[in-house]
This record gives sequence, C-alpha cells and structure tokens, in this order.
Amino acid sequence: MRVALVAFDDFTDLDLFLAWDLLKRVPALDVRLVAPTRTIRSSTGIAIEVHGGLDEIAGADGVYVTSGKGSRALVRDADAMARLAIDPTRQVVAAVDSGALVVAALGLLRGKRATTYPSPDLHEALARLGVERVDEALVVEGNVATAAQCLAGVDLVAWLITRLVGADAARRAVASVQRLPM
Amino acid sequence: MRVALVAFDDFTDLDLFLAWDLLKRVPALDVRLVAPTRTIRSSTGIAIEVHGGLDEIAGADGVYVTSGKGSRALVRDADAMARLAIDPTRQVVAAVDSGALVVAALGLLRGKRATTYPSPDLHEALARLGVERVDEALVVEGNVATAAQCLAGVDLVAWLITRLVGADAARRAVASVQRLPM
Repeated sequence: MRVALVAFDDFTDLDLFLAWDLLKRVPALDVRLVAPTRTIRSSTGIAIEVHGGLDEIAGADGVYVTSGKGSRALVRDADAMARLAIDPTRQVVAAVDSGALVVAALGLLRGKRATTYPSPDLHEALARLGVERVDEALVVEGNVATAAQCLAGVDLVAWLITRLVGADAARRAVASVQRLPM
Repeated sequence: MRVALVAFDDFTDLDLFLAWDLLKRVPALDVRLVAPTRTIRSSTGIAIEVHGGLDEIAGADGVYVTSGKGSRALVRDADAMARLAIDPTRQVVAAVDSGALVVAALGLLRGKRATTYPSPDLHEALARLGVERVDEALVVEGNVATAAQCLAGVDLVAWLITRLVGADAARRAVASVQRLPM
C-alpha cells in the first residue's frame, strides 16, 4: 500500500516527522514524502528534500496531510491546490492540525465534523468552508480523519495504518514509540 | 540559555525532531543542532544539515543527546567521543533511548540508575558500563536524566526546560503539542 505524506514550506517539524517515522515502521507501507517543491523548509529552518511532487497523490492508497503555518499559503496557491488530487471515495485521508484547512479548502469536509489546532484563524477559515469544527483529539468521518495538536498525530497515524494494513500493524508501530511503562 | 542537541548519522527521526520542535517553542532557549559531521542522515533517509560541530557542546548550559542505531558507531568513534565534552557538574544533561549509551560510554552514568530503549544490545552495553538500568519512562539522577522510547521524549524535554528556564515554560511548550482534550 502506498501513502503520500503531503508537506509544504513552513511546515511544523513534529507534525511531519512524527507521521513519517511512525508510518516508516510499517513494512507493508511504501511512504512517499511529497510537496509542491523539491526542497521544503520547516518553520524552525529544517530543510529537507522530498521524494516527489503532488502528482504522486493520485496513485496513493492513503494520503496524510501534515501541518504548519505554510498551510495558509498553500490553500491560496491555485496551481498547487489543483494538483492535490485527493479523493476520499477511493483513498483514506488523514489531516493533522492545519492540514484540515487544506482538506477543507478542497471541499472534502463540507458539512462534516473535523478538528484542528486551536487557533482562531483556523476556526474561522473552517467555518467559512462549511466545516462543523469540534474540540476533539481525533474525528473520523468515513474515509477522512482529522486530529488536533501534534501528539494526536499518533492516534491519526494509527487510524491510517489500521485502515490500510490492519489493527495489529498499527498497535506494533505505536508500541515501539510509546513511553515506558506501557 | 544555550542547548546543544546532539545528533549523529543513522539517527531516529522522532527522537530528534520531537526534542528539536519542543525546545524551539521556548523563546529563552538558543537551540543548536550539533553532530560529528555537517550533514547527518536518519535511519529512514532524511538528510539534514546541522548548525555546528561537537565543539559547541562545551559552551552549552544544557545538552540533549538524541538516539538512533548510529549511537553504536558513535561510541566506537574515539575522535568523536573525545569531542563530547559533556560535564554534568556544570551542565544539565538529557539522553533519550540509545542516547543513554553515549552518556554511559563517557562514564557519566557509572553506578547510577538510567533507562533506555528496550533492546537487548543496549541493556547489555549499559550493564558493562556499570549502569543500573531500570524499566521506567524517565529517570533523573541529579543533573542527568534518561528517557525510554520516543514519546517519553516529551517528559525528558519538559524536565530539561524546567531545569534551564522554569516549570511554566515547560508546561507551555508541552501544552502546545498535547493532544486535545488536554
């Protein structure tokens, strides 16, 4: 199964690397880090090279949209948004924090419940996009799930792994990073 | 206050970036990512450029040693180990997972309690280095603390921030990533 991990400039380190590291612990998953540009830089200045462009999203079984201040610029970038071919009718879709803004801007959360980072600008943007925003750690609406605050990414990644591979694979991945004692 | 975040080739993404992201949320901290080489690559292939070499450690108020498979090669690298000028008599020292191996190899955990990732090779190595290894999430021995498994890094970073800046700063940093509801 292939997962497209979607990132962008001005991303939040923990949101991206928590999902990346956990997903990479599942041998059955082929995880590809994709972005509008070949190199992306986090809000704290960590620069990394990604594996491919947004065109890879269409061929993925699962899509995980990460988060960061740069999500606001991304949703205003019509070219990039047109290349975000996310389709919940045939893909499992996860979005953490302001990743929910990206998924909502594609019209995929209209009339649906979702959660996001507790920031006023995100709350207002989601309301304008017709999303019923709630204060929960993880919200699942069919094939689309959202999570609030970086560490809820653990729950969100576990949901994605469960849907794509199975509950055992998700439990194993989470157990390998969970603080001791379990 | 200056923190040296010590990393190395073949590092674990989550161990490094969780600490980096959380520490960077504290305005009073000047966080420097240091390593034996200018560029380091994680076990999953993420390559990043660091800010400086191990020589910066001596000038830091706090030292956070991250983790990964590469810790085993690091402790066999006599040149690099000689440059790890970590001094708990004047620095606050934190080590997550196999970072404990690095601190133990410097002789700083002899006769002391410590925790690490539950891997047989690490348990044996710590025993040979005279460490009393225990199965706990966070172990504090004076100015040296160790944590077991990636997500206990949250507790370890909070301990370091508390010691260097204060409990309020630590609470604010953790609250900004904690899953909702709090």
